Amino acid sequence: MRKGIVFVISGPSGAGKGTVAKGMLDTLDNIRFSVSATNRAPRPGETDGVSYYFVSNERFDEMIRNDEFLEYVDKYTNKYGTPKSSVEGLIEQGIDVILDVETIGAENIKKAIPESVSIFILPPSLEILKQRLIARGTESKELVEIRFSQACEEINCAYEYDYVVVNDDKEKCLRTVASIIEAERRKGSRNADLPKQVLNNEIVENK
Amino acid sequence: MRKGIVFVISGPSGAGKGTVAKGMLDTLDNIRFSVSATNRAPRPGETDGVSYYFVSNERFDEMIRNDEFLEYVDKYTNKYGTPKSSVEGLIEQGIDVILDVETIGAENIKKAIPESVSIFILPPSLEILKQRLIARGTESKELVEIRFSQACEEINCAYEYDYVVVNDDKEKCLRTVASIIEAERRKGSRNADLPKQVLNNEIVENK
Repeated sequence: MRKGIVFVISGPSGAGKGTVAKGMLDTLDNIRFSVSATNRAPRPGETDGVSYYFVSNERFDEMIRNDEFLEYVDKYTNKYGTPKSSVEGLIEQGIDVILDVETIGAENIKKAIPESVSIFILPPSLEILKQRLIARGTESKELVEIRFSQACEEINCAYEYDYVVVNDDKEKCLRTVASIIEAERRKGSRNADLPKQVLNNEIVENK
Repeated sequence: MRKGIVFVISGPSGAGKGTVAKGMLDTLDNIRFSVSATNRAPRPGETDGVSYYFVSNERFDEMIRNDEFLEYVDKYTNKYGTPKSSVEGLIEQGIDVILDVETIGAENIKKAIPESVSIFILPPSLEILKQRLIARGTESKELVEIRFSQACEEINCAYEYDYVVVNDDKEKCLRTVASIIEAERRKGSRNADLPKQVLNNEIVENK
């Protein structure tokens, strides 16, 4: 059985990484969200254990101390982290995992799991990124400015990712990221058993 | 400008590599066939300079001596080769090239162009491969047997390719190979200029 692949979707706030990650779950088979933990309050429509594991600030810090995170970001008031157990449990069952994380988290996951596949969602322009951050309306003006200047630093490192996808059109972007996932599943290095099965008179299929 | 990518489609006779390569030309933009040279006679419907460059046996051997080929196979009566000029001219213009070659040729191209992308088209079973070779009806019974035993050796090396795609359904196989081409075009290493353009206040798109 093929081990699950870890796909890490990242990019600056407002590039659309969350929408892309959710879109993959809606259209592809055999892929799941690794649910992140956060200390922030749920936004309207968010469900505990589905959107995030909503934990107290104290529990979040305890998880850091216990080395329970694959990656975490705790430099803002709102902290986010990916519990190791959430990812490992899935890939051992042959299920692909999709992670939607900030760029610092993406770097940490690549270090921890070098065979993971990193995808940077790039806004088509800085102007459009700023408009999207403002239109979202979930953050204060001050935080929008912080996010925007941080975005420029993050974009500067995009070339380090395995893939870079411009999000100028949501549907096109979703199709492109789905293509990347399908392509990675077909890598020869992940399918060394297929030729052997054919030569062994078995009937095979793409999985 | 991004340099063109060389996609090499290979696999045993009867796996469907020719159909896959032609299918990519029909559905994708900015990709062209590198026209091969052959010493064999045209089959019905084949056009010189489009299907192949049909050359005399003497001219083919001269092209080998002059090192005009990126790869060639001359172990059968029918000889096939990929003229270097045909490939280089396209990738320098930023046009992706698709090559449909036998496995020996694919190995030679990988050595000559390490950044080329190799895709092995795998039949879903040996039984189905044999049926396809017979159904094609273009080769003698003896040649079908030779091709079949050769196919087993070729399949044994499939894991060395960048991608392995099972051709159990033509349309599905075409979509999967198109996904691989789209994914490779989005590789971070091939798009190092995109983040720089965004930070330079340009509007970018996937190309």
